[in-house]
Amino acid sequence: MRKLYHTHLSPFCRKVRIQLKEKQLPFELVDEPVWERRKAFFKLNPAGEVPVMVDENGLILSGSYAISEYLEEAYEDYPLIGKTIGERAEIRRLINWFDVKFYQEVSQDILFEKVFRRLMDHGQPDSDILRQCKRYISYHLDYIAHLTSERSWLAGEFFSVADIAAAAHLSVLDYLGDVPWDHAPRAKEWYALMKSRPSFRPLLSDRVRGFRPPVYYDDPDF
Amino acid sequence: MRKLYHTHLSPFCRKVRIQLKEKQLPFELVDEPVWERRKAFFKLNPAGEVPVMVDENGLILSGSYAISEYLEEAYEDYPLIGKTIGERAEIRRLINWFDVKFYQEVSQDILFEKVFRRLMDHGQPDSDILRQCKRYISYHLDYIAHLTSERSWLAGEFFSVADIAAAAHLSVLDYLGDVPWDHAPRAKEWYALMKSRPSFRPLLSDRVRGFRPPVYYDDPDF
Repeated sequence: MRKLYHTHLSPFCRKVRIQLKEKQLPFELVDEPVWERRKAFFKLNPAGEVPVMVDENGLILSGSYAISEYLEEAYEDYPLIGKTIGERAEIRRLINWFDVKFYQEVSQDILFEKVFRRLMDHGQPDSDILRQCKRYISYHLDYIAHLTSERSWLAGEFFSVADIAAAAHLSVLDYLGDVPWDHAPRAKEWYALMKSRPSFRPLLSDRVRGFRPPVYYDDPDF
Repeated sequence: MRKLYHTHLSPFCRKVRIQLKEKQLPFELVDEPVWERRKAFFKLNPAGEVPVMVDENGLILSGSYAISEYLEEAYEDYPLIGKTIGERAEIRRLINWFDVKFYQEVSQDILFEKVFRRLMDHGQPDSDILRQCKRYISYHLDYIAHLTSERSWLAGEFFSVADIAAAAHLSVLDYLGDVPWDHAPRAKEWYALMKSRPSFRPLLSDRVRGFRPPVYYDDPDF
């Protein structure tokens, strides 16, 4: 059976989980406590980071970039990265937007301040940093609203890895109660569509010890 | 003519410049002072970041991920991303290693402390941060030495975008005199091979006002 080593609140692991479900590829989830730096796990991925996927053919893939592109190359059913070269360029531009820009400006800091500090007993969250993230997230929600005012989905008229990447990051922050949905109703509409997809449901039932999501977290009509 | 909007000390722009040269694709370099946040540039890339490539067919590509994958899809001569699915997975794992892990642990902080602060008149470099980067860079050089002790190039027996990504980051730090080459002679040998490639030469003759590279910077026998 295909295995995915993951942590519950990693946006990059969530991205791969959604993509696998969308492609109807069964897999077993393996919790990997990366902070314990297990030797056996470093043998799978010398970077010591999740996600890592071990496919049925034994191939080991590390990082959501390699896994995501691999899934599209190896399993052509339910394509999620566009058909034309131009579509793929736009999808990858937006994947980069969320996996790099959004992560650096928002999700990385919020995860560090709210989750990592608590797990590692590493002091209180820095409220200045959290306030700055809040400003940035509004601007990213505006961008999602802008894109979906012109298109059905983020990268065009079709659902793609761009939507998956964006929703993966937002789902983690939503779990922590940090997405000001009322700021951008159109972005909220897009996210409601994401939440109602079967591929998204397992994420919505995830619960992490010590962190309780807001009541609307798993409600598609939030 | 194909255009590449860039800044001289961006590892991501350097990565695309080397890849274009390796693929024998002519292009015109356009300096983009991203810190001025030019409106016209935001129209090309709403993220306001380099690299941006405008191809001969008019297609606009933003970010080294989208550009790099596009170049391999659109121009099949001189392939740099592997032939088999397994080769590509390994190349992308290593691209991610340098573009994300190495960037976050080393090049981003050094660029901020040494270049951005000076350009923006934003105080003195933080010596604690620079010391930490120095520790991290040694560990990455060890990893390059480890890989090249088993393989001809980073991802296998062939030259690939993995080598290009790693060398792009290191070339920027080398310009700033921040690579302790003597720490890992085997990594230095690999980099000497990179420096002697025609695709690398334009980078070695780059000079940025206010920043003088060490004398060995452009010498392949350093």
